[in-house]
Amino acid sequence: MDVFEAIKNRRSVRKYKPELVPKDLVQKILEAAVRAPSASNIQPWNFIVIKDRKVLDMVRKISPGYFGDAPLAILVCSDKERAYKLGGELGRDYLTVADCALAVQNMLLAAYASGLGTCIVKSFSSTAIKHILEIPDGIEPELLVIVGYPDQSPKPPLRRPLQEIAYLNRYGEKYFEK
Amino acid sequence: MDVFEAIKNRRSVRKYKPELVPKDLVQKILEAAVRAPSASNIQPWNFIVIKDRKVLDMVRKISPGYFGDAPLAILVCSDKERAYKLGGELGRDYLTVADCALAVQNMLLAAYASGLGTCIVKSFSSTAIKHILEIPDGIEPELLVIVGYPDQSPKPPLRRPLQEIAYLNRYGEKYFEK
Repeated sequence: MDVFEAIKNRRSVRKYKPELVPKDLVQKILEAAVRAPSASNIQPWNFIVIKDRKVLDMVRKISPGYFGDAPLAILVCSDKERAYKLGGELGRDYLTVADCALAVQNMLLAAYASGLGTCIVKSFSSTAIKHILEIPDGIEPELLVIVGYPDQSPKPPLRRPLQEIAYLNRYGEKYFEK
Repeated sequence: MDVFEAIKNRRSVRKYKPELVPKDLVQKILEAAVRAPSASNIQPWNFIVIKDRKVLDMVRKISPGYFGDAPLAILVCSDKERAYKLGGELGRDYLTVADCALAVQNMLLAAYASGLGTCIVKSFSSTAIKHILEIPDGIEPELLVIVGYPDQSPKPPLRRPLQEIAYLNRYGEKYFEK
């Protein structure tokens, strides 16, 4: 699938078919994730693939923005200790979040190009999800990516026009004419 | 270009040709950026396209990790006030960073598929870049994306194997066999 097509037509999906996601597609998604750039190549990321129904249900219960009944979710975590050791405070406090999000966007596009739907969830309780997934100190849950075969075709959400948000050389100087 | 090809072969470029980047390609990159998902569709992003040579040179001076002499850079900023108003503290403090990074990954892929090279820079002094680009309070510089025609073909950086970083249902339970 063309990259612009994937970027343009990917939607956040909140209704899924029960069909399971084959492991080779999960692998494709994870391989896309780790191709994201990472500050100083620290690669502060960990991935917990959740497919056990009981675990999924527990995670859903502590995540208010978790819609639908997808058969899979992938929790992207950052390794704060690794990031601090290799990248200092900026590495630990900021770049972990940025790097994990860069990886997540690749995951969304790879999933979409594989016929899968996804939705990012951040509304979970960090404490609860760490408990459920036995995540140790020093590893921080960043973003949860729900994955499954879509059972809806959501319309694109409204976008702020580029004329409003793109500037030239300094803030306030419009880059595009109205 | 195929999305997996773009994800796999995009590199961080640190040496550029002097050739200017046409405005229609900048627009393609920005259109890709705003197709990223955004928590509650808040779209907390602003983009400052920097192509004035004097401004680029000033920004480069206060950004230790800024290599090469690209004719263009795009500073992705977050609108912290908008994010707080529409998304509360989580929106302002976390989701702005994540949303801007999701947008940046789309920018990198769109640029690569257009024959351009990119590199993310975060090493700038926020205070200094805000001063140079006349960025008001409430708007925060997140990531700087350098853009230009590549004058090098960097090798892929080493990746941590998925066997090390992917788990199943709980942290510590390997998802892939060695």
